[in-house]
Amino acid sequence: MTHVLSSSQRQEHPSGALRSSSVPHTATIFQDAFWAPRLHTLRERTLPAIYQQMRQDGHFTAFRESWHAGMRRIPYVFWESDISKWIEAASYSLATHPNPDLAAQVDEAIAFLLTLQQPDGYLNLWFTQVEPEQRWINLRDYHELYCAGHLIEAAVAHFQATGKRILLDAVCRYADLINATFGPEEGQRHGYSGHEEIELALMKLFHATGEERYLRLSHYFIEERGRRPLYFDLETQARGENPADYEMGTYEYNQSHRPVREQREIVGHAVRAMYLFSAVADLARELQDEGFQETCERIWRHLCAKRLYITGGLGASKGNEGFTADYDLPNTSAYAETCAAIGLVMWSQRLLQLDADHRYADVMEQALYNGVLSGISLDGTSFFYENPLESNGTHHRQPWFTCACCPPNIARLLLSLGSYLYTVTETDILVHLYAQCTTTITLGGRQITMHQHTAYPWDGTVRLEIESDEPVALGIHLRIPGWCQQARLTLADEEIPYETRKGYACVRRTWRPGESLTLHLEMPGEPVYPHPAIRENAGMMALRSGPFIYCLESADNPIPFHQISVPNGATFEKHFLPTLLNGVAVLRSTVQVLETEDWSETLYRNRPPLAQPYTLTAIPYYAWDQRTPGEMRVWLRTSEGETSNHFRL
Amino acid sequence: MTHVLSSSQRQEHPSGALRSSSVPHTATIFQDAFWAPRLHTLRERTLPAIYQQMRQDGHFTAFRESWHAGMRRIPYVFWESDISKWIEAASYSLATHPNPDLAAQVDEAIAFLLTLQQPDGYLNLWFTQVEPEQRWINLRDYHELYCAGHLIEAAVAHFQATGKRILLDAVCRYADLINATFGPEEGQRHGYSGHEEIELALMKLFHATGEERYLRLSHYFIEERGRRPLYFDLETQARGENPADYEMGTYEYNQSHRPVREQREIVGHAVRAMYLFSAVADLARELQDEGFQETCERIWRHLCAKRLYITGGLGASKGNEGFTADYDLPNTSAYAETCAAIGLVMWSQRLLQLDADHRYADVMEQALYNGVLSGISLDGTSFFYENPLESNGTHHRQPWFTCACCPPNIARLLLSLGSYLYTVTETDILVHLYAQCTTTITLGGRQITMHQHTAYPWDGTVRLEIESDEPVALGIHLRIPGWCQQARLTLADEEIPYETRKGYACVRRTWRPGESLTLHLEMPGEPVYPHPAIRENAGMMALRSGPFIYCLESADNPIPFHQISVPNGATFEKHFLPTLLNGVAVLRSTVQVLETEDWSETLYRNRPPLAQPYTLTAIPYYAWDQRTPGEMRVWLRTSEGETSNHFRL
Repeated sequence: MTHVLSSSQRQEHPSGALRSSSVPHTATIFQDAFWAPRLHTLRERTLPAIYQQMRQDGHFTAFRESWHAGMRRIPYVFWESDISKWIEAASYSLATHPNPDLAAQVDEAIAFLLTLQQPDGYLNLWFTQVEPEQRWINLRDYHELYCAGHLIEAAVAHFQATGKRILLDAVCRYADLINATFGPEEGQRHGYSGHEEIELALMKLFHATGEERYLRLSHYFIEERGRRPLYFDLETQARGENPADYEMGTYEYNQSHRPVREQREIVGHAVRAMYLFSAVADLARELQDEGFQETCERIWRHLCAKRLYITGGLGASKGNEGFTADYDLPNTSAYAETCAAIGLVMWSQRLLQLDADHRYADVMEQALYNGVLSGISLDGTSFFYENPLESNGTHHRQPWFTCACCPPNIARLLLSLGSYLYTVTETDILVHLYAQCTTTITLGGRQITMHQHTAYPWDGTVRLEIESDEPVALGIHLRIPGWCQQARLTLADEEIPYETRKGYACVRRTWRPGESLTLHLEMPGEPVYPHPAIRENAGMMALRSGPFIYCLESADNPIPFHQISVPNGATFEKHFLPTLLNGVAVLRSTVQVLETEDWSETLYRNRPPLAQPYTLTAIPYYAWDQRTPGEMRVWLRTSEGETSNHFRL
Repeated sequence: MTHVLSSSQRQEHPSGALRSSSVPHTATIFQDAFWAPRLHTLRERTLPAIYQQMRQDGHFTAFRESWHAGMRRIPYVFWESDISKWIEAASYSLATHPNPDLAAQVDEAIAFLLTLQQPDGYLNLWFTQVEPEQRWINLRDYHELYCAGHLIEAAVAHFQATGKRILLDAVCRYADLINATFGPEEGQRHGYSGHEEIELALMKLFHATGEERYLRLSHYFIEERGRRPLYFDLETQARGENPADYEMGTYEYNQSHRPVREQREIVGHAVRAMYLFSAVADLARELQDEGFQETCERIWRHLCAKRLYITGGLGASKGNEGFTADYDLPNTSAYAETCAAIGLVMWSQRLLQLDADHRYADVMEQALYNGVLSGISLDGTSFFYENPLESNGTHHRQPWFTCACCPPNIARLLLSLGSYLYTVTETDILVHLYAQCTTTITLGGRQITMHQHTAYPWDGTVRLEIESDEPVALGIHLRIPGWCQQARLTLADEEIPYETRKGYACVRRTWRPGESLTLHLEMPGEPVYPHPAIRENAGMMALRSGPFIYCLESADNPIPFHQISVPNGATFEKHFLPTLLNGVAVLRSTVQVLETEDWSETLYRNRPPLAQPYTLTAIPYYAWDQRTPGEMRVWLRTSEGETSNHFRL
């Protein structure tokens, strides 16, 4: 008995949006060949590696041994955020995989942080040890509230993983001090953080504690941001400096150039923008604030329509670690910070909960499988800060960075990946990401265990099974990814018709024990074409299969990549190679390569160059730079487009 | 009676080379619509403009008014080279177009320079006024001998133009001091100039005075260059500095990394290289030195085969104002200094005299009509230092530069253009460049007047006429440019067969009064393709007609240039527009332009972009940036090559 709904009215918000809620990452156990080994590596290699790097750097000791007044602030001014993010990541791991050694390290790190806490609750490494007189003096530049935010996120994760309140209580005291210090009242500072982060952290703290003052403080920070007179102007003048001398030129850099509700475009530092709008999405949901929701959607659409790399990377420029102009997406110099792609996953997931629109999940998946995952090596111990789409072979992952935001950030995202697969309503389960796994979800008071059986992301067949001894009435919404050009649903080997609401096929029925619903997503190797306004990519194409964007590496293709051209009608064969790069599906295609042999000493001539056929091998972008260094490129020249059947005269 | 020779044995050098000699620039009177008005502008606008800029800058006064010990040296350390080059350019003008006001300015400038001369003959602005103690202390960096070179060139030009010896005598005293100071003997400095120039200047001084010591000194400078131990190492150590700290990293920068005869590739600062090898070519000729000639030819071939822009621009990088790697020819960031293209004209003309090979004249013409001429505005008063092949509309000519080498350099080249059209042997005239003009040449004691009747460079028909009352026996060698795919020769409207020696058709006969020989060069608009190893240009083409490389400008084509693609089989119609940009032939072609309309909010998609036809208009590259600023580009995408008939399977 199958009932297919084109839209499930019951879950719809008055706006027509389908609201749903995320589930804890602990609900899901990965059993797949893709994520499960990666998560194992994250637990076994990455967490220890980051911890060691922090110890070597002196994160816990240098302030005593070598820090002194007058030393340069960056990156030390936000050093403890590395510790906080590591505690958060480690807590996610401890929640699913108890580990006494790791637990002891976490306790030790927390004990260290607590030694920094001042009698009034203030808790910051730099501004207690080096420049206590600078407390709250320069919110624009010094990451003080940003560090507080990561501390809060760590505390919430640690509390949820272990039940221990030690750090949570400490950050509540700190948050209460912040709440007393900042706000609309006379005598309070009408300020907000130059680097957003605390806003979304306060939302987590609100949810963890139920204390509405944290919600209100987050709301205050967001509403105050960009109001006239601009706090950063006043603050700068109070320091006796000229706001016009601001190094970054414009407050677009930190999204405080105008009130958040009035912002129309994604601008400035990319990570800051992602964290800001994640909090705005949280507030939209919590406060049922349509204005915030519209602001988020508008800016997210602008990002995706004009300023997003095909890898889900974002923030094209190193200069501001952020956005430049529409369609300005250079490849070699792409900044595309790993943290920004992580932030996009976070923001998109929040939007997805506001409305189950496949575009949010598509972008979340696009960033996750490409621009995020490229940020960490297969062995889990080296990292990209920048994720270019083209390289001459000189860009490599590093074990650590002076500004080491990315390594613990990727660890905390991936170690909480279990919370990104599903969302739930009172009655329904929405499936956003596919992977072989078992998830136990509480839904309208019932505990439901769902299995995904699939070789995703290498194959698009996903069999969903509700584990139960008796029939279960349940709506299941399955995301049909935007990249998928052909999708089918079968129930007991029988094809069932479906309609989609915003890219989700909903099957609402009473599931009998042993029954399973199978989604068949075609995911061949295929070309993707860029908007013609992207200057560097005009006349080019990229290769995709399922969620993966592909790239060429010299290790597989020892030819100059700029001499390659993909002809009209090229086909792309997909082969899974279990021993290559921990197992990847490669794409192979016969392309043309310009010949240099018949040029002799000629540099320019009136005959076009000759070309020879060549069978190229492309690998998923995330897996590049794990072998002999050489060229890498995502975008390949093609003669498609101009000479296609679509040409209109 | 026509006699066609495939090679004219009589003029051949033992090596098989056809040697010939240049003629004075005064021999030619331009009567054409292209050069004659430009030269008029150079005389009437450019020379006064440069003079005014130098006065405003304080070239003649600042040393008294504001120069002081400890001030920064660059560009002041070589300031008087601007004056010298201006005197040289003005002298070329005075030689053909007497002008009392200009003559007075020149006399005044010379008088100024003479006030600087020291009792021992030393003559330098900076090192007499600011750092006399630094004389000869840092030849590597301080342009002392470079300035001496330009002073010598000015003196020779002034003497030849006016017969006045005042500056010539002064520079001979200075050259004698240099000759006493530098040389192989004990007690002499075994050094040479960091910026070459004096070497070719000394050759001019030798020819002007007949004094062999100047030839020998030039020869010494060239032979000593790059010999171990390296002078610049010793000199640096003598200053108490470490040669390893050299800012430019390698002595390739100034071509002193190894002995000149052992150099294999064109490297380092482009202008320095051009001036060096111009002198080496002079010495090869004067000393009948095959080694020098081979060195020149080898390095010239390397330049033309691997490191030359299609515009004749050279020196891709701003970092060293010079060469980088083979085929590294980026477009937007192309440095391609105007002075380097000027130097290439000078060097190529010297090689052409060593052997009448059309390739030298082709490159000379290519640089002259493109990368040199782009360096000066149509109104003669603003200049490009850098000549990129692509611009977003922000690169513009300037009236002057802090380092103002280019403006007077282009003036001195163009005002002596008359010396570049012909060379002669005892019996023959070689015609290298075509233009409507009258030239009077002394040949084996006979004075011969030759007329060219042509609309070149816009049309390729050139009628040559020997003006004479009686028959004249004479060989005429006509260059068949490498860009020309179809050339014919007619005598009295009758086609005559010809063979070529290295691209020159020789007609040796007795010319009767009124007879004329007509060369018909086809010069349609046509595509040119780049060597596939040029990374940025793979899959692209440029447009050419005759000596001109074309470019697109937004002023004619208000569309985004990267969205243009030239289809297979495109044709290029040529139209002369007499009112556009002082009269240019434009090329028009129907191309395809990628459409953005049907993309909506999509940034990437699985359908290729659509394209629409568009008729583009291209103008000669030299004429760009004279109208409303906008995009400019030389290289256009094309689907030719890969999909051409030449494709081999």
